[in-house]
Amino acid sequence: MKQKLKIIKIGGNVINNKEALSSFLVDFSKNKTPKILVHGGGKRATEMISELGLKPKMVNGRRVTDEKSLEIVTMVYAGLLNKNITAQLQQNNCNAIGLSGADANTILAHKRVVKDVDYGFAGDVDIVNSDVIKTLVENDLTPIFCAITHDKNGQLLNTNADTIAAELAKGMSKHFEVELIYCFEKLGVLVDVDKENSIIENINLEIYSKLKKEGIITDGMLPKIDNCFDALQNGVTKVIIGKPEVISDKNLKHTTLVL
Amino acid sequence: MKQKLKIIKIGGNVINNKEALSSFLVDFSKNKTPKILVHGGGKRATEMISELGLKPKMVNGRRVTDEKSLEIVTMVYAGLLNKNITAQLQQNNCNAIGLSGADANTILAHKRVVKDVDYGFAGDVDIVNSDVIKTLVENDLTPIFCAITHDKNGQLLNTNADTIAAELAKGMSKHFEVELIYCFEKLGVLVDVDKENSIIENINLEIYSKLKKEGIITDGMLPKIDNCFDALQNGVTKVIIGKPEVISDKNLKHTTLVL
Repeated sequence: MKQKLKIIKIGGNVINNKEALSSFLVDFSKNKTPKILVHGGGKRATEMISELGLKPKMVNGRRVTDEKSLEIVTMVYAGLLNKNITAQLQQNNCNAIGLSGADANTILAHKRVVKDVDYGFAGDVDIVNSDVIKTLVENDLTPIFCAITHDKNGQLLNTNADTIAAELAKGMSKHFEVELIYCFEKLGVLVDVDKENSIIENINLEIYSKLKKEGIITDGMLPKIDNCFDALQNGVTKVIIGKPEVISDKNLKHTTLVL
Repeated sequence: MKQKLKIIKIGGNVINNKEALSSFLVDFSKNKTPKILVHGGGKRATEMISELGLKPKMVNGRRVTDEKSLEIVTMVYAGLLNKNITAQLQQNNCNAIGLSGADANTILAHKRVVKDVDYGFAGDVDIVNSDVIKTLVENDLTPIFCAITHDKNGQLLNTNADTIAAELAKGMSKHFEVELIYCFEKLGVLVDVDKENSIIENINLEIYSKLKKEGIITDGMLPKIDNCFDALQNGVTKVIIGKPEVISDKNLKHTTLVL
């Protein structure tokens, strides 16, 4: 039987709040299952772009990464956030090792092909080198991934953190029984986005198809859940969507996705 | 017999020049001995401080690292420079893994005690965890260290890259036969700083003591050479000071330090 591995993704709602982040990292450190953390960038990169007198450029809710923006997201994600998270985890006796996809060639990507929109230095993941990540995990290290990858031609690429988490989960399923946990600001997938008691606690492919048809799941939630089912169809055992507290509070409601 | 390990430190003269850096990284990748790279920050951090409308503060040639400066050096050293160097090495088929001292708890330091000058978040190294670095090296990974350490209490610290190289060399001597190479802009230690043919090719403790007395070695070179002899007195086999090309060109003159 394969050993368990948890892959947990946190986004802006945790990263942007010092106390929330600190509290999450304490909970994360207490969990003794082998684990990997993936973090988004929060608003710090956008702030830094403004501080430098530049204007963040977004199309369809996604950042357009020109050369200067790539410099800034590399600084903020791989430097400021990744190293501060790593140092805080070390304080909590979690032997964290901060990584980008370039480090140990862990995540290979290619620059997104231009169709309608040129997203610049945005990366789409090709390969997760699960063997080297397994070696790190087996040596009691906890990889902390920021959302920067590379193309093996010396080019760093800005990559969606949700996608990185799903790709890591798929890749690591070769070696581990993987549970993927997406933490965000709501209890889980809600029928009515303003009512937490409208949570859908279990979603399988049949239910998902129905919820889409009925227009209950729409917009930003669609790619997120597509990522989840893609992971489930490629070896991941279970996917959870919930609040950051879900990693420690067994009684907290959340959405579980299975095939 | 212990396996050989080279620890190579590059500073501003290589980092600041795109072509020089690229050429150095090609040479570095060709060297198949197990190796570690330590890089300084170059002028990019100072530029970034200015771009953000702040003023770099230096005392006795050393940066005073206030909270904002620490943010910036963490972004530039651990993010921008470390990840771009790592991606370039990956392009050259060198399996680089970029690290700060917080990653895998590799380098523990403490905030410098205030005497005459308060250097702020400057770190003095306490412990190099050589066992985990050995594990990485034994798995054919090449650690790339930036000059950021941590105190195990969640605080990142800005640390002198020359010192990091010397401390890593001392620590790794437990497991390897270590050669420490400092790359800078001159051929080596020169009697007359403007004449490259005045190079002193061999320095031992006796010669060093004489050169100091005669006022031939002064100023900025003193702490550098003190670092070298400290390393030699703590297990390091050989220390070389020379141009970056010294790592590939066996005929290039350089200064060799032994006890």
